[in-house]
Amino acid sequence: MKRFLDLGDFSREELLALLELARRLEREPDPRALAGKILGLLFFNPSLRTLASFQAAMARLGGSSIVIHAGQGSWQLETRSGVVMDGAAAEHVREGIPALASYCDALGIRVFAEGKDLASDLAETTFNVMAALIDKPLVNLESAINHPCQALADWKTLDDLAVPRGARFVLSWAYHPRALPLAVPAAALHMAALRGMEVIVLRPEGFALPGPIMERARRAAAASGGSVRETSERADALGGAAILYVKEWGATAPYGDGAADARLRSALTSWCVRNDWFANTAPGCRLMHCLPVRRNTAIADEVLDSPRSIVQREAANRLPVQMAVLHQLLNS
Amino acid sequence: MKRFLDLGDFSREELLALLELARRLEREPDPRALAGKILGLLFFNPSLRTLASFQAAMARLGGSSIVIHAGQGSWQLETRSGVVMDGAAAEHVREGIPALASYCDALGIRVFAEGKDLASDLAETTFNVMAALIDKPLVNLESAINHPCQALADWKTLDDLAVPRGARFVLSWAYHPRALPLAVPAAALHMAALRGMEVIVLRPEGFALPGPIMERARRAAAASGGSVRETSERADALGGAAILYVKEWGATAPYGDGAADARLRSALTSWCVRNDWFANTAPGCRLMHCLPVRRNTAIADEVLDSPRSIVQREAANRLPVQMAVLHQLLNS
Amino acid sequence: MKRFLDLGDFSREELLALLELARRLEREPDPRALAGKILGLLFFNPSLRTLASFQAAMARLGGSSIVIHAGQGSWQLETRSGVVMDGAAAEHVREGIPALASYCDALGIRVFAEGKDLASDLAETTFNVMAALIDKPLVNLESAINHPCQALADWKTLDDLAVPRGARFVLSWAYHPRALPLAVPAAALHMAALRGMEVIVLRPEGFALPGPIMERARRAAAASGGSVRETSERADALGGAAILYVKEWGATAPYGDGAADARLRSALTSWCVRNDWFANTAPGCRLMHCLPVRRNTAIADEVLDSPRSIVQREAANRLPVQMAVLHQLLNS
Repeated sequence: MKRFLDLGDFSREELLALLELARRLEREPDPRALAGKILGLLFFNPSLRTLASFQAAMARLGGSSIVIHAGQGSWQLETRSGVVMDGAAAEHVREGIPALASYCDALGIRVFAEGKDLASDLAETTFNVMAALIDKPLVNLESAINHPCQALADWKTLDDLAVPRGARFVLSWAYHPRALPLAVPAAALHMAALRGMEVIVLRPEGFALPGPIMERARRAAAASGGSVRETSERADALGGAAILYVKEWGATAPYGDGAADARLRSALTSWCVRNDWFANTAPGCRLMHCLPVRRNTAIADEVLDSPRSIVQREAANRLPVQMAVLHQLLNS
Repeated sequence: MKRFLDLGDFSREELLALLELARRLEREPDPRALAGKILGLLFFNPSLRTLASFQAAMARLGGSSIVIHAGQGSWQLETRSGVVMDGAAAEHVREGIPALASYCDALGIRVFAEGKDLASDLAETTFNVMAALIDKPLVNLESAINHPCQALADWKTLDDLAVPRGARFVLSWAYHPRALPLAVPAAALHMAALRGMEVIVLRPEGFALPGPIMERARRAAAASGGSVRETSERADALGGAAILYVKEWGATAPYGDGAADARLRSALTSWCVRNDWFANTAPGCRLMHCLPVRRNTAIADEVLDSPRSIVQREAANRLPVQMAVLHQLLNS
Repeated sequence: MKRFLDLGDFSREELLALLELARRLEREPDPRALAGKILGLLFFNPSLRTLASFQAAMARLGGSSIVIHAGQGSWQLETRSGVVMDGAAAEHVREGIPALASYCDALGIRVFAEGKDLASDLAETTFNVMAALIDKPLVNLESAINHPCQALADWKTLDDLAVPRGARFVLSWAYHPRALPLAVPAAALHMAALRGMEVIVLRPEGFALPGPIMERARRAAAASGGSVRETSERADALGGAAILYVKEWGATAPYGDGAADARLRSALTSWCVRNDWFANTAPGCRLMHCLPVRRNTAIADEVLDSPRSIVQREAANRLPVQMAVLHQLLNS
């Protein structure tokens, strides 16, 4: 494996093997596997789980990490091509990234969506500018439209809890004070489709996931024996659900229009997940969320603090799946 | 040992054993004691000594560290219960802390006092919200009303210099441009009382340490053969003192009233420790301070740069005492 | 070796031996050479290469690093002597630096020029205040007027590419939106003179390097068989050049006068290095720059993206030369 950028780059067998390796590393430490190896972690956006769990994963395997927060202690980085750099950014990624790569054995990069141009975000324009500069192992720490480490941790979480392959997986929009990117909903949807689940996207009007994201999930579902559909009716979605995967994201009709987003959003503060959402679901329906989550805004305390919440297990699973990814990238 | 939160949680014998272990680790390195172990360090407030010495302590013992500055590169964290999170904080500690804990073998947390409600700060409300979320070894890196690592380093410093157990230890208030928390004065007072010293708190009117802090120190002194009293008269306090421990803190009459504090404080700029403070002390009276200190505001250059200052030794002692604490938490 | 602060502190033989050690460490890793050693890195200014490559160098040699960004997660540090600290800085370097040093086996410090008083910057006043507080191995990570790690990496880069000792090395000023320090031009000039090259400084009127910097380079050139002269005529400088070393810096006539600098600078936006600059150079003339560089402001894309640019090799060479420096400081 040279890169871990998208679950779609791997066959089902390869993904299952990664999950198996993650389980093995949970049981049997391999504390010298990456001795002497260095992972460079470059963040353009905040992080808690990714920041901590990648450092922990390297340490658990005997390696080490270097963390760079762009513009915080290091230079502000320009990603656009051809610009006259007379603004705030002192350095271009075309210089900065190869330099960082030259000191490390692998890199991870986090750069969120710009949220202005859907085609550009769907094409992972910014991430790909940087990826093209690197010939060493590379990990996507969350890009405009993807978060494969989170998706793999979520898959493992479903396996850990023996959620049946064909169970109903509802990806629901929830309220947030402002528009957030599509990376996690796109990645979670794709993962559940790859796993072969009955996937339903529950979202208000104006927040439908863009066509290419839905189409990709439908293709993955078709290949794995699953299905994908969408609705704006909660009762329609939640009946018989085994999993309610909650995520906040920005309006898509149109994408990147702040005023339209704010107008639509202001009428949706009631899309905060509460216990009564689960009245029509299967009794054991679990709640998933990638975190961070705003309590009592996106999800109520009563839900997050109840046994149905498995958000902590998702977070904890970041460590073993990333140990597996790093093991494959750097010790194979 | 499962937690290192307060010197008061340990018997005198346990504290003396920790100090003995610190001295042993100073003499004889144990460079593989914590091989493979990871300490997560979560800071809500700035740090230099704690930040650097805990990382050094883990490295000296063969382990590694992960540093998170809340809201700087990571999400801003909410600590209050039950709030609707529609403000600046993107994540609640109820999610963030267990996630971080799941990647590490031990955690350390620094969170200063809010400085508004004395009862809440005395109860360590904020720290305890987080501590209750963690079932792994935990270290207090300075909380609202405590700083046990500093206190243990100070105790070792007194021992290193053979300051007699029953010697006079004066804890003196000093001027600072704004109100600072009570954590260090409370911890230093308690430590000196536990050690069995003749403790005198010297502070202006309006800055008396709260009753529960004084009472606790008096109980510790009673058990160890020491004593505790307070005064606002410098000559009364300093006569025959072996140690002048200087610290800045906010007004307590009333606590958390910014306007009252500023009014009282504005008349006290002369409480900057100068050489003439030592005219009535024992000739060898030492100056202690936890650092950071504002030169020529709290303590004059002439004192900090004189041989009586042992602030550097206090700072250096953070490393061995914390190595001892981590050794006990993670290798026992 | 106790300190690595200035190439001028070493004989030619010592520098050549450091470069030889750097080449050896590139070929043959020495992964336990600094096992258990800790490097403290203190930054008063942003960094990417220095920040990452020093951490990588320690990790490659089996040691570890502690990074402190002054005022970001740690206290804002005062460097001036004798001041009443009633402003933003909570800590003085006279306390902070010895504390940090006590936890580490070596320190590195980056502090840029104040850019107000030439004599003070030439005397390295601020850096030297801190250096005087440290009795452990110390590395200059870029000071007011020096950047020896960059200079050594540049020397290795010239050797790697077999640039003849006596070849023409043109150090050229380039445009930048604001005044930058003299550290890199002074260090690159000195390095090329020490190496024995035919050095020409190309700069607009008002941007001549200060006399002491030029004199020092001339002395170094005299001892090594090289030469140093300066000009403001591009054609005069570039004819036959093997290396064009580009750097932005502030006006020096007068030094530290922001208004004068801005006035001079506003007429010089055409000093952006483009392909047509190389019409009169040797065919294989290489472009060097320490990075970060503002694309299409100081150097055009067409040059940075052409084969003549060796800026990436310079950046990559930071790692082996710093491994050699640390090896000499900590394992000899």
